[in-house]
Amino acid sequence: MPHDLQFTKGHGTGNDFVLFHDPDDTHDVTPEQVRLICDRHMGVGADGVIRAVRSAAVADGAASLEEDAAAAWFMDYRNADGSVAEMCGNGVRVFVQYLLDQGLASLGPGETLAIATRAGVKRVSRSADGFQTDMGRWSLAGGEPLVRAKQLPVARPGLGIDVGNPHVVVAVADDAELDAVDLAYIPVLDPEPADGANVEFVVPAEPLARDGVGRIRMRVHERGSGETLSCGTGAVAAALAVRHWAGAAAPDDWRVQVPGGVLGVRMFDADDGEHVMLSGPAVLVYDGVLALG
Amino acid sequence: MPHDLQFTKGHGTGNDFVLFHDPDDTHDVTPEQVRLICDRHMGVGADGVIRAVRSAAVADGAASLEEDAAAAWFMDYRNADGSVAEMCGNGVRVFVQYLLDQGLASLGPGETLAIATRAGVKRVSRSADGFQTDMGRWSLAGGEPLVRAKQLPVARPGLGIDVGNPHVVVAVADDAELDAVDLAYIPVLDPEPADGANVEFVVPAEPLARDGVGRIRMRVHERGSGETLSCGTGAVAAALAVRHWAGAAAPDDWRVQVPGGVLGVRMFDADDGEHVMLSGPAVLVYDGVLALG
Repeated sequence: MPHDLQFTKGHGTGNDFVLFHDPDDTHDVTPEQVRLICDRHMGVGADGVIRAVRSAAVADGAASLEEDAAAAWFMDYRNADGSVAEMCGNGVRVFVQYLLDQGLASLGPGETLAIATRAGVKRVSRSADGFQTDMGRWSLAGGEPLVRAKQLPVARPGLGIDVGNPHVVVAVADDAELDAVDLAYIPVLDPEPADGANVEFVVPAEPLARDGVGRIRMRVHERGSGETLSCGTGAVAAALAVRHWAGAAAPDDWRVQVPGGVLGVRMFDADDGEHVMLSGPAVLVYDGVLALG
Repeated sequence: MPHDLQFTKGHGTGNDFVLFHDPDDTHDVTPEQVRLICDRHMGVGADGVIRAVRSAAVADGAASLEEDAAAAWFMDYRNADGSVAEMCGNGVRVFVQYLLDQGLASLGPGETLAIATRAGVKRVSRSADGFQTDMGRWSLAGGEPLVRAKQLPVARPGLGIDVGNPHVVVAVADDAELDAVDLAYIPVLDPEPADGANVEFVVPAEPLARDGVGRIRMRVHERGSGETLSCGTGAVAAALAVRHWAGAAAPDDWRVQVPGGVLGVRMFDADDGEHVMLSGPAVLVYDGVLALG
């Protein structure tokens, strides 16, 4: 049924989203509508669409919603191609800022807001740089494939890391080499993981841990999207890989500079083992109204 | 002074614009604001910003405004990089649709609306595919430089055409060759025009003039922008070049298929010599409000 979609456009380090709320799950969007909304020339333009639905009203089988009755809102995330996505590390911060801005939730200093996602309940709190999200457990997985990329002078061994989705992190020699890599071409992994992987190119800054904080510059090639301004799980994978390479003396606090800004990554011990916290800004840019046919 | 910018987003064959009206010329935007507005991830996202100002209120020295007292509105066009532009073939149609939508002008069938631009007064009327604009005179200029492009198997001679801005049109062998050209790289012209040029790669369709209408497929590399979904003056240059190559039997009516849609080009005799008419769609997509700092 034709209706006017009231939306807000927002971004986290340049990873951008069209957000709207549909508390009673009565105005879902079709894949075709998502593709139109995300079209950067003929639609609104975004990396994805985020719909806010009351968890209690969610019709589809998002099993994770049972886990935590306190997660009042479900983050329904769709990729720009119309497909359903489980979670988005930058998106969840912008989602929380949107809920606060719309008066749909509150989050005081030191408090935690539980958000239902298709990847389980995520806990978000305020941080110095915006919001921080417990991204949960991670694992070294995917081995050490050789990474080849256009304008990378030699093939270099990468490190496979799983943060809910697969990544391969590869260290390059210096800033000049990082800038030169041509990510208009898909990096080639040998062996190639069955489901592909996001590939992060990183330069660990020296000294590695000034003030107890490690610093990294990163560029990322995302599966199916090409080079992007930012990738939250990619920043997490980059920090984990550089810490792994640095050995026992490496810090647990990291600042990861992506093309769209700076993200914070912190490793900490939880009841079920080590977790990773991702922090960063969330910006609401403007409000709009789009007629949906 | 901070204020809320009420805008409309629109496009013509994928060439997209943020439009707003400032009738009394009291809310001009700075180059920094234009760059923010046009940023596709952190702003609204567009190829350019179009401000509607009453011609009588225009403060700057747009000399052309003197020519025609009937041109009530001045189209103040800025490129995404913040620079001032003279005119935009796709933009002027979207500008007219915006004036009509806002109730700022009227345009009945058979009527003509005069629009003041930095390139003089342009006359727009309704057409079967949307709106048509008299783009004025043109000239063969710029010689026949050799064109090299990545994935173009051989260097091919182009044809220089001036339609208010400089173009070089080059014919390729077939659709496959057109699709293969890699416009992530700037085409190389030999000799290189002093101010550069937009470069159009075209495939004349066969039969050349079915129903008296010539058909062309085109891709374009715009100076300073890279490949775009559409270029209005580029479509005009493409039709002029293909007619030039085809000789005396060639039609004066053309349909030019660009990646973002189809544009119409028609050559006709005016008092001061041959003019070119550019026609095509104009779509208003959504309305928004952006806080400008």
